Amino acid sequence: MNVFEAIEKRRAVKLFDPEAKIRPEDERRMLDAARLAPTAFNMQNWRFVKVRDPEIRAGIRAAAWDQAQMTEASLLVVICADLKAWKRQPERYWAHAPAAFRELIVRSMQDFYRGRPDMERDEAMRSCGLAAMNLMLAAQALGYDTCPMDGFDFERVGELIALPEDHVIGLIVAIGRQREPVWPRGGRLSADEVVFEDRFPADD
Amino acid sequence: MNVFEAIEKRRAVKLFDPEAKIRPEDERRMLDAARLAPTAFNMQNWRFVKVRDPEIRAGIRAAAWDQAQMTEASLLVVICADLKAWKRQPERYWAHAPAAFRELIVRSMQDFYRGRPDMERDEAMRSCGLAAMNLMLAAQALGYDTCPMDGFDFERVGELIALPEDHVIGLIVAIGRQREPVWPRGGRLSADEVVFEDRFPADD
Repeated sequence: MNVFEAIEKRRAVKLFDPEAKIRPEDERRMLDAARLAPTAFNMQNWRFVKVRDPEIRAGIRAAAWDQAQMTEASLLVVICADLKAWKRQPERYWAHAPAAFRELIVRSMQDFYRGRPDMERDEAMRSCGLAAMNLMLAAQALGYDTCPMDGFDFERVGELIALPEDHVIGLIVAIGRQREPVWPRGGRLSADEVVFEDRFPADD
Repeated sequence: MNVFEAIEKRRAVKLFDPEAKIRPEDERRMLDAARLAPTAFNMQNWRFVKVRDPEIRAGIRAAAWDQAQMTEASLLVVICADLKAWKRQPERYWAHAPAAFRELIVRSMQDFYRGRPDMERDEAMRSCGLAAMNLMLAAQALGYDTCPMDGFDFERVGELIALPEDHVIGLIVAIGRQREPVWPRGGRLSADEVVFEDRFPADD
């Protein structure tokens, strides 16, 4: 499927067919696509937890105001990030680069994040967003539907998936097949409300 | 271009051809694609500042450790977000929905963000990440190269683009045509280091 077609066809699906299955090969391709999303300093700080276990799924649903996607979608991918990826053997992110370059970039990375917890967290959320989009477009291209979700109790879901220290949850992507078509897109802001030239207008 | 091909071909390009131009029609299509990225409660909290002005570009380069992409790429898109999108006439995000549903969702949105500045900020960064990925894949599909960047002085770039109060910068995407091929991908973490089943392993 063409990039523009996938971007246009992707919609947040609420009603999934609980009987639908994802082919293992498709699942692997989606996750491979997610892992090709860019990260700052190539630190690959995202982590993907594929939740299939019915008990964990029920627990997540209970922690998400009973939203049906949490148990009815074929798969949930909890997209998380390691806040401290920048200091966990960072040399490995540049294993194939010349040694001098590797040392330079690893040093820059340390200088960039050290003592900046806000930047660590922003980086986590950015990386999760980038990876989630790749994941959803790959799913779309393979004929599946998706729903990106962040309406849930993050702490409770963290407990359910044994989220390690220094990790955060970014969002959950539900993947499966819709059981009825979603509404047409509505309430779109126009381009001139969100796209500007050179700077924000003075009266914004 | 096929979704998987775009995802695989996309690389962070550092050396752009300073003479290359982006066709206006292509630029419009890229930004349209970015605006189709999903946002929580459909609040479309991202804002896109297309920076062409050479003086602003030079200022951004100076605020980014002199990285050449900032002036050599054909276009810079500073992807920002409005932290308070959830309370700026939120009814408009659901203008086409039945009134009762609109009221319900607008109320949920207010309850969700009120008094949660951390959630506002996380939402901003997630939305910027999702939109940036659509933008880069659309650019790739149209034959351009891109570079996502967050190594710059956010405050200084905010001044240069007249970032309004209650807005934040997520990242900058440089778009143009590469002037030499990038290195092959290296330093990739394996799938089993970042993809887990049901929960994180106990020793992670």
